[in-house]
Amino acid sequence: MIYLDNAATTKLNDEVKKTITKLYDTYYMNADSPYLPAVKINNLQEEARIKIAELLNVKDNELIFTSCGSEANNMAIKGIAFKYLNKGKYHIITSIIEHSSVYESMKQLEQLGFEVTYLKPNKYGEISNEDILNNIKDNTILISVMKINSEIGSINKVEDIYQDIKLKNNNIIVHIDYVQAFGKYDLNLTNCDLGSFSAHKINGVKGSALLYKKSNVTLLPLISGGQQEFHLRAGTSNYFYNIALVKTLRLFIEKRRELEKNNFIKERFNYLVKLLQSDSCIHINSNIEKNSCYVINFSIPNYKPEVILNALEAKEIYISTKSACSTNVKRSRVIDSLPISDDLKDSAFRVSLSLDTTIDEIDIFYQELIKILDNVVVNG
Amino acid sequence: MIYLDNAATTKLNDEVKKTITKLYDTYYMNADSPYLPAVKINNLQEEARIKIAELLNVKDNELIFTSCGSEANNMAIKGIAFKYLNKGKYHIITSIIEHSSVYESMKQLEQLGFEVTYLKPNKYGEISNEDILNNIKDNTILISVMKINSEIGSINKVEDIYQDIKLKNNNIIVHIDYVQAFGKYDLNLTNCDLGSFSAHKINGVKGSALLYKKSNVTLLPLISGGQQEFHLRAGTSNYFYNIALVKTLRLFIEKRRELEKNNFIKERFNYLVKLLQSDSCIHINSNIEKNSCYVINFSIPNYKPEVILNALEAKEIYISTKSACSTNVKRSRVIDSLPISDDLKDSAFRVSLSLDTTIDEIDIFYQELIKILDNVVVNG
Repeated sequence: MIYLDNAATTKLNDEVKKTITKLYDTYYMNADSPYLPAVKINNLQEEARIKIAELLNVKDNELIFTSCGSEANNMAIKGIAFKYLNKGKYHIITSIIEHSSVYESMKQLEQLGFEVTYLKPNKYGEISNEDILNNIKDNTILISVMKINSEIGSINKVEDIYQDIKLKNNNIIVHIDYVQAFGKYDLNLTNCDLGSFSAHKINGVKGSALLYKKSNVTLLPLISGGQQEFHLRAGTSNYFYNIALVKTLRLFIEKRRELEKNNFIKERFNYLVKLLQSDSCIHINSNIEKNSCYVINFSIPNYKPEVILNALEAKEIYISTKSACSTNVKRSRVIDSLPISDDLKDSAFRVSLSLDTTIDEIDIFYQELIKILDNVVVNG
Repeated sequence: MIYLDNAATTKLNDEVKKTITKLYDTYYMNADSPYLPAVKINNLQEEARIKIAELLNVKDNELIFTSCGSEANNMAIKGIAFKYLNKGKYHIITSIIEHSSVYESMKQLEQLGFEVTYLKPNKYGEISNEDILNNIKDNTILISVMKINSEIGSINKVEDIYQDIKLKNNNIIVHIDYVQAFGKYDLNLTNCDLGSFSAHKINGVKGSALLYKKSNVTLLPLISGGQQEFHLRAGTSNYFYNIALVKTLRLFIEKRRELEKNNFIKERFNYLVKLLQSDSCIHINSNIEKNSCYVINFSIPNYKPEVILNALEAKEIYISTKSACSTNVKRSRVIDSLPISDDLKDSAFRVSLSLDTTIDEIDIFYQELIKILDNVVVNG
């Protein structure tokens, strides 16, 4: 099997699995109970928070454990917006290519009376910082733009204009969806107010995620209740997963940095690009100079994507056409928003690599793809 | 060790643990990916939903997987209330003894312009159905009252007036927090619109829960985004936990019904009550005739609770004074709301039993408690 859909999710790291099963064997008390064995569990969780904070170069009280990246995104966006409910007309800036959890949160906020500006990307799926700045108004309260688009791999750099945003309107909170960048880049979180992260994109468990919240930012809780997570996210702590997140992140970063020493991540991406470029049927949609090296988007016009996906699947090769969080819409909103032809939009594919993807796997994928293109009828 | 704080959380069932680790070993793809191995995972999850629905006697499309009971409560309450935001003045009925996730949700809704009536309990922590009916107004949209109070074990019967509520005002949605009743009672969910459940109270994992939503009820999503959970709860499915919830619930129900054949649950509760009644220092706060047999609340006036808790802890006996979701407030809101003396309020304890609690454990707990009372200085 060749799994090339790592932007959707990744295989659980064996070491992380061992950590979790060991935690299951050892602990069960409620981390918020007052007796000593429970206090010890709580301390372990807080140590985990400190270690993750060190890896992300932030303060430990700036990290909130959540149950998924979608929750972190909702918590950030609604947590800011709801502070302004019933207080007048307020404005939010986002892009049309955000993850569904951001996009649908914005749609809900529009229903509740907010004005939302959806910025459009260039043909590579990149959002212009100039566009962001030009759309700021006096009543703008929030900017939410992702770091790396999950379907294209395009990279945005809102951090570069963080100071300019604050200078233009100091009320604005900057949220960045870092889900596809988590662990894969050495991030500088100084230049954002809120950031979302998820474990299962870097060989962690599904159901484990984080929200970064700069100390001076206040949020209305999405999940109100107990004193857990600084009163910002209620619910009995899933400390098994929260503690395991340290290992998930540390192992991923260590491995990635090791691979980067030999420039392997970049070289592997370039290798895939070169193969795809060698076939005239294939059009690469991603910006090969500036893209994330973990995701590439390309189109094969005149072929039905589902036919190609099925033929690849028959060879146990798994790629995708869009985000798994929008599988039951016909054409991906993200791809649809690109200023490219309908032919390209209707035939887009995503290949996304893990740290374990080999050159061999890329070779086999490409050879099988070419065979399929040779054999299937155009428009078939 | 004698663990008598099972209302806070319970020990993970070994069979459930095995199921989860086996799932970890077998699957990792995103359940929403379009290729066959992922579709199979999705089918397994949907089979789990069907089986849970059978156990709860509801339709499978009425069950939404969530990450915790607090999330289910927030999703139910805010999911109804937010539909009415910016549309006028609306009214909600709840009680002062609800779980913090309900209570704090209500506090947030008050901030957002809703009027909330907090009903007071009788001295046993029971909410009167007459009170509920008498407080219904033309603009009432939601009633949220728990089935079993986690600190007292008092049982409410809102289901009995479900038809009367609808007759008085058909717009009202009835939400019942079933977290402390899940698996422990054969519930009839016909007479509620929304119900919350959590796995870790019945030997399941922390981070796994459910919201029941009657088919005709519409909610605004708390976590907006992808198509998961009928578009009502976004985020990559934590199918490991969702699938394991079948086994969690089934094993608990089977064991409980087996124990009930010999009337063991009731007998064990009565045994504990008899022991506690035999000491004149101890005052039982729970309604011993009508209470849940899983929780008992009692006070030992003139003794400092923390001294007794610590002395019990030294013997590796764990009980609590209040909900783990409100550990850093001085006096429990729930106990404080009871029409009982301050002496009783300041010296309240909760003992909560699991299906595995033995008569021996209850005996040892009581003997150690008596020794402590004999040895510690009153008001010491």
